Amino acid sequence: MSTVTVTLPDGSTLEMEDGATVEDAAFEIGPGLGRDTVAGVVDGELVDKHTPLHEDISLEIVTDQSDEYVDVLRHSAAHVFAQALQREFPGAKLTLGPWTDDGFYYDVTGVDLDEDDLETIEDEAQNIIEEDLPIERVMLDREEALERYEDNEYKREILETEAAGEDPVSFYEQGEFYDLCQGPHVESTGEIGGFALLEISASYWRGDETNDTLTRVYGTAFPTESELEDYLERRQEAQERDHRKIGREMDLFSVPEHSPGCAHYHPNGMAIRRELEEYVRTKNDELGYDEVWTPELNKAELWKPTGHYDAFKEEGEMFAWEQDDTEYGLKPMNCANHAYIYANQTRSYRDLPIRFSEFGTVYRNEQSGELSGLLRVRGLTQDDGHAFVRRDQIEEEITETLSIIEDIYGHFGLEILYKLETKGDNAVGSDEIWDEATTALRNALESQGLDYDVEEGEAAFYGPKIGLDARDALGREWTIGTVQADFNIPERLDLSYIGKDNEEHRPVMIHRALLGSFERFMGVLIEHFNGNFPPWLAPEQVRILPVSDDNIPYCEDLADELGQFRVEIEDRSWTVGKKIQQAHDDRVPYMLIIGDNEEEAGEISVRDRKEREEKNVSLDAFRDHLETEVDQKRTAVTFLV
Amino acid sequence: MSTVTVTLPDGSTLEMEDGATVEDAAFEIGPGLGRDTVAGVVDGELVDKHTPLHEDISLEIVTDQSDEYVDVLRHSAAHVFAQALQREFPGAKLTLGPWTDDGFYYDVTGVDLDEDDLETIEDEAQNIIEEDLPIERVMLDREEALERYEDNEYKREILETEAAGEDPVSFYEQGEFYDLCQGPHVESTGEIGGFALLEISASYWRGDETNDTLTRVYGTAFPTESELEDYLERRQEAQERDHRKIGREMDLFSVPEHSPGCAHYHPNGMAIRRELEEYVRTKNDELGYDEVWTPELNKAELWKPTGHYDAFKEEGEMFAWEQDDTEYGLKPMNCANHAYIYANQTRSYRDLPIRFSEFGTVYRNEQSGELSGLLRVRGLTQDDGHAFVRRDQIEEEITETLSIIEDIYGHFGLEILYKLETKGDNAVGSDEIWDEATTALRNALESQGLDYDVEEGEAAFYGPKIGLDARDALGREWTIGTVQADFNIPERLDLSYIGKDNEEHRPVMIHRALLGSFERFMGVLIEHFNGNFPPWLAPEQVRILPVSDDNIPYCEDLADELGQFRVEIEDRSWTVGKKIQQAHDDRVPYMLIIGDNEEEAGEISVRDRKEREEKNVSLDAFRDHLETEVDQKRTAVTFLV
Repeated sequence: MSTVTVTLPDGSTLEMEDGATVEDAAFEIGPGLGRDTVAGVVDGELVDKHTPLHEDISLEIVTDQSDEYVDVLRHSAAHVFAQALQREFPGAKLTLGPWTDDGFYYDVTGVDLDEDDLETIEDEAQNIIEEDLPIERVMLDREEALERYEDNEYKREILETEAAGEDPVSFYEQGEFYDLCQGPHVESTGEIGGFALLEISASYWRGDETNDTLTRVYGTAFPTESELEDYLERRQEAQERDHRKIGREMDLFSVPEHSPGCAHYHPNGMAIRRELEEYVRTKNDELGYDEVWTPELNKAELWKPTGHYDAFKEEGEMFAWEQDDTEYGLKPMNCANHAYIYANQTRSYRDLPIRFSEFGTVYRNEQSGELSGLLRVRGLTQDDGHAFVRRDQIEEEITETLSIIEDIYGHFGLEILYKLETKGDNAVGSDEIWDEATTALRNALESQGLDYDVEEGEAAFYGPKIGLDARDALGREWTIGTVQADFNIPERLDLSYIGKDNEEHRPVMIHRALLGSFERFMGVLIEHFNGNFPPWLAPEQVRILPVSDDNIPYCEDLADELGQFRVEIEDRSWTVGKKIQQAHDDRVPYMLIIGDNEEEAGEISVRDRKEREEKNVSLDAFRDHLETEVDQKRTAVTFLV
Repeated sequence: MSTVTVTLPDGSTLEMEDGATVEDAAFEIGPGLGRDTVAGVVDGELVDKHTPLHEDISLEIVTDQSDEYVDVLRHSAAHVFAQALQREFPGAKLTLGPWTDDGFYYDVTGVDLDEDDLETIEDEAQNIIEEDLPIERVMLDREEALERYEDNEYKREILETEAAGEDPVSFYEQGEFYDLCQGPHVESTGEIGGFALLEISASYWRGDETNDTLTRVYGTAFPTESELEDYLERRQEAQERDHRKIGREMDLFSVPEHSPGCAHYHPNGMAIRRELEEYVRTKNDELGYDEVWTPELNKAELWKPTGHYDAFKEEGEMFAWEQDDTEYGLKPMNCANHAYIYANQTRSYRDLPIRFSEFGTVYRNEQSGELSGLLRVRGLTQDDGHAFVRRDQIEEEITETLSIIEDIYGHFGLEILYKLETKGDNAVGSDEIWDEATTALRNALESQGLDYDVEEGEAAFYGPKIGLDARDALGREWTIGTVQADFNIPERLDLSYIGKDNEEHRPVMIHRALLGSFERFMGVLIEHFNGNFPPWLAPEQVRILPVSDDNIPYCEDLADELGQFRVEIEDRSWTVGKKIQQAHDDRVPYMLIIGDNEEEAGEISVRDRKEREEKNVSLDAFRDHLETEVDQKRTAVTFLV
């Protein structure tokens, strides 16, 4: 009998008989581990512990202490949901029910569910958990399996596609419930500590909108009740912070039906965008970038030599059309136009680095079903930049860029996670230049003392990359900026500079975006700050509240004296209490409350967004305070004392 | 016999017999005028003095003192050219040869001309002028006319189309030369004081590129030699100032083949555009505009209710296409998107005026043959603004806008000509609202003490307009900004605000652009300044010229101290003379020349673009001087003393 080599996470190996299972391997390592085994990770994929091993693989044993345990638990929770559903709605037909990043879903049919039904089903699911039913794997003859699903064309289709060659077929059962399933699962329904059904939506069989419409029920599960509660709290908070909701409340932007995926910035949102633009401009100036402007509209031929045409157009991701016998397109990237400007002149080694920045608006034809507020869009304005450098300049160029990233993100209270992505299989360019550039990126990260994860083989084909993810106030991570080397475009467009040796040389193009795009960055900021923008970014920085209409002229004088800020006067004839409430609802950082006392004393009362109040403040003191906050771009309101 | 009523410029009328000519009417006014008559202007159209009058018309008699005289003279000059051509090249066939705004052209064929030939022809034309040949109108039988053009299919076509019903047919003759022609002409070739042929290009019969290719010869003529010389000098200067030429020399922008009509701003051009943007932003803030941002890409349905779809799309002037079953378009105007933002909320009379500004990029599908540099483009970014006002606010709103126009244009040294365009035939909206708005515009102009021309009936259909033309350093006029009232969009989109009476009311929309578009305005500025931008706009404000490489470190210190300006160091190993020449060629306003003497004394030598030099200047004094020039936005370099 032949054997297979199993490589364990510590690098050690086991020789097992061909056909031995994951569980067998665990027992081979030790009987304790064998007993605790819930599942295995074979070559990166989570599988049932009964999975037989037929070739040399890497293996990690999953126990209830492993990160993957919760995935297994959620898979079982999907079965618990399905069982409860069938107890309450015997006509319900099951189709597919996988685990997901933060829970599970099950697509079902033959039943007409609404939100209220979820409660009933959830109650029954709790009963099933309390019943602590053992979850068991049962192997059935193919014939028997097909009989079980006489009335379920979806499961039968699975038996005839994914499970076509299997006989016997793997089922999992708990109490009266059974499901065609490859596992893995936990031992018993009682292991589920926290279980919740979350929402209901429409879906399509196998996700294809030409197929039958199904009902998708989302839920989640955790080993403990308290983990579930934490999750539900964060989920609730995230929903309340939804940037689309806050965007409406603060009148920041809208995405009208006539422009799917293309945000319209209202004055309040534009005030934030302008601050971001100005800030990035300052940083671009510091880094020696020269701003350029290139049009959205170009002939499609522009993107043929660069490869963008193949990458975007062929996938239907480019807005492109034929008009007057010419094929036009909207730029999906700014690189080609910038490379054109570079190539417009003969460049000398003395001129490099040449750096172009642009607040470049690009359009990409994302599927309309995928669009969501500012976070999934079709039109986006990138704070784009391209530096054309000599190979010996890559490291210094990247180092300089990285040196300001921490500073920038600090002003938003966002933590940055760095990822170094290295050469993959389909890379262009020689090993030599990849090694050189990857080392340059690595050195740049290390010279800045930055922690980073290496993602081997994950770089795009054209060069190594440093990815910047921002971690927000809710602990969520967002892919934002990027710094990457590109050997491809300079080669394809035959870009050159004249070296000291009077010969033509090939520059390297460095793509970088500090914030990424204004759309995504603002979407993240809105949720991160929950709309409570720091004073430097707040669309309305100060609202002046006259106690009575008689105080309005004095308020107007004050507004003039604060002319450097974004100031409004609340001149509706409301009570002061209502005015204050409205200013809080509008998330204005500072209110100045001005009655006769203040007017007579020539002073102001200040109230901040955090409900701290201070009377008898001089306008100068307040102005100085706010000026400092704004100039220093502090991330939160700091109260003056 | 019936009579016709002829209305003269002073409003008086003549009764003439039906069929009487323009010349007859002139003799009726007075025998002196009759003898001096060269031509007539009938209902606005320049016609031959022999033209018979068959209906009631307005008439202005043209003599050699009239503005129109030069047009008549140029028409005759076209004949002189044609005569000279046929003397030199007997095979040449004539087609059409009209006068134009600044000369004439004649489209000819049957001859292969180049620039050198123009000289020969011009010499012969001078002979014809010296011959002082009488120019006479001759009426020929149709048969005879057709015989004359046995070999000229173009003239025969004219006889069969434009002149289809005429018999006899009008010819003009001078010496051996004749031409099928309606006139008018001067009495004799000797009246032409100055005659010049200017250039040669290809054209198509009747301007249609599917027709035969012809050769077009451009020329001009004036009553006196000195007027011609002035003109040629201005023309030469305009050619040297051509913004495309200067744009290349100064590396300001390019319009590459992959983006016809869509300028790419290089760093130098973008530096100017950024200054203009910032300046307009300041003015927009002063005027109470709130900046917004709206996408270029929209569904075409956006422009159906506004009427833009019919106006642009049907004419092929919109970039529009179908993709994934949706018709998309690039915005040709920003109005619809701004109106949408207005309509996004309920507005109160207290909120008005609501003003949105946007540096909005719009695209229009102009014919590729019409495109030229920055002055005739497809992609343009307007400094657009829309104010939504109550009817009682129109006058104040327009007055405020006008109040800053003079100030703005003063900083560019441009004189503004104002035109008030009033209601035409196809106007929408009641007489009452037109009268009210036109009065508001007129009052606004008058309250600002501005001179303006009234162009009766010239307004667009949607409301009265104030047009702003800028007169540049060469005396040329450019249509730039606009301020106009619009009753149409608010009506079509059902825009409203809640009045004090709690009822819905219709706002008026005021469109305005201060500079028009950055493209056109920059094109005009480049030619106006001949590239010698004032310090506040110059892409490079200061260039530091080290006398030797040893002075470079000190120059770098100086550059740091001038960090608020756009400063470059000329570090190529050239002679100082060559460095100075290059800086002059690059039109840099200030050069700092730094040798050992300057370095030891801790001082600088300053040279300006006008070749004025000053030694032993302190850096502080120079910085203060430049700061003042920039802050005050002075239109020219003022030398420090």
